[in-house]
Amino acid sequence: MITTHLTYDDLMAWEHRKRANFVNSIGGFKSVCLIGTKNKARQTNLAIFNSIVHIGANPPLIGFFIRPDSVERHTLENIIETGTYTINHINENIFVQAHQTSARYPRDISEFTKANLTEEYLNDFFAPFVKESTQKIGVEFKEKIDVPLNGTSLLIGEIKSTYIPKESLKDDGFIDLEESGTITSSGLDSYHTTQKLARLSYAKPDQWPSHI
Amino acid sequence: MITTHLTYDDLMAWEHRKRANFVNSIGGFKSVCLIGTKNKARQTNLAIFNSIVHIGANPPLIGFFIRPDSVERHTLENIIETGTYTINHINENIFVQAHQTSARYPRDISEFTKANLTEEYLNDFFAPFVKESTQKIGVEFKEKIDVPLNGTSLLIGEIKSTYIPKESLKDDGFIDLEESGTITSSGLDSYHTTQKLARLSYAKPDQWPSHI
Repeated sequence: MITTHLTYDDLMAWEHRKRANFVNSIGGFKSVCLIGTKNKARQTNLAIFNSIVHIGANPPLIGFFIRPDSVERHTLENIIETGTYTINHINENIFVQAHQTSARYPRDISEFTKANLTEEYLNDFFAPFVKESTQKIGVEFKEKIDVPLNGTSLLIGEIKSTYIPKESLKDDGFIDLEESGTITSSGLDSYHTTQKLARLSYAKPDQWPSHI
Repeated sequence: MITTHLTYDDLMAWEHRKRANFVNSIGGFKSVCLIGTKNKARQTNLAIFNSIVHIGANPPLIGFFIRPDSVERHTLENIIETGTYTINHINENIFVQAHQTSARYPRDISEFTKANLTEEYLNDFFAPFVKESTQKIGVEFKEKIDVPLNGTSLLIGEIKSTYIPKESLKDDGFIDLEESGTITSSGLDSYHTTQKLARLSYAKPDQWPSHI
């Protein structure tokens, strides 16, 4: 194997788009989801995000990063205005439609319509879920933490409601996302299904983990 | 398909470990990497993290979340002390060893030794890389941002150096991680290889994206 060594200076000398592809790839595979929102005038918005992160389980918190000066600003505005949003997993059947939501539509056009995805309202939750998604989370906005280094923000919310396929939930709380068709992404535009290697037992100092 | 609906109260009523499995799963597939550090006394440390996130490309920034009161504290202490760390992707050949680094070893024991992984020093970078990894990043610590909601912290660093297989780097800056064997994780303990569906073209309002 021939190794390529690239330094900070090498990357900074590249044109913007090439550097974006590289830096978005080098972090590894990512969660990719659709975030659904609605403003007080009942205009819906749907946008794809690949920066979803687990923040903590007690209480159940989930986060994502947003660039306030980008096409993502409609999502941010709606979350600030209403305090509510949904996170919907993407599967093989809808990944092209999900990608299409990243196109630059004007404020008064819903990406649900343009990407042929269906708004779904569950148990009086204000923000729209994506009907075609198999793993859905209703989130209440808790905190926006700015990253001064580059002007992005981390939005953190509390998990209020989840809708998942019954058979994907295991007795120990693990959700088999592969079984339910959730996919992963890499870089800015690459989508992948997964194939399980193993679940491994809790690691202890004196023994190798076993398959569980 | 039968859907299970779980609320915040349902999750909070579960015992800690079950809730941790669930909330760590519901966010989707994740990047899983080994973070290598060394303190000033030259004691090395290696720890697995599944909370790596892309922060931005200009400048190239990468982040991860850490729980300061956990087994992860050695990593945090070394980063604060030396300002430097490495992020190393995990492949199918080393995922069991990588998982083993999460066992609770004392401060003066290196997980490199206990997990049968090899320290590698490249171009005078202070922190140790993992020789068995095929995608490696040398990072300079820039900022620690605390999350008051639950006491975790986001550590952000600048990408100073990368070592990747020559053939995995494409002309447009995209890195084919699947080709080089990088794997993904879900929940706290599940590891998966990937199978590419497609790369999609930049989304524009008036046309569906095409495969690139």
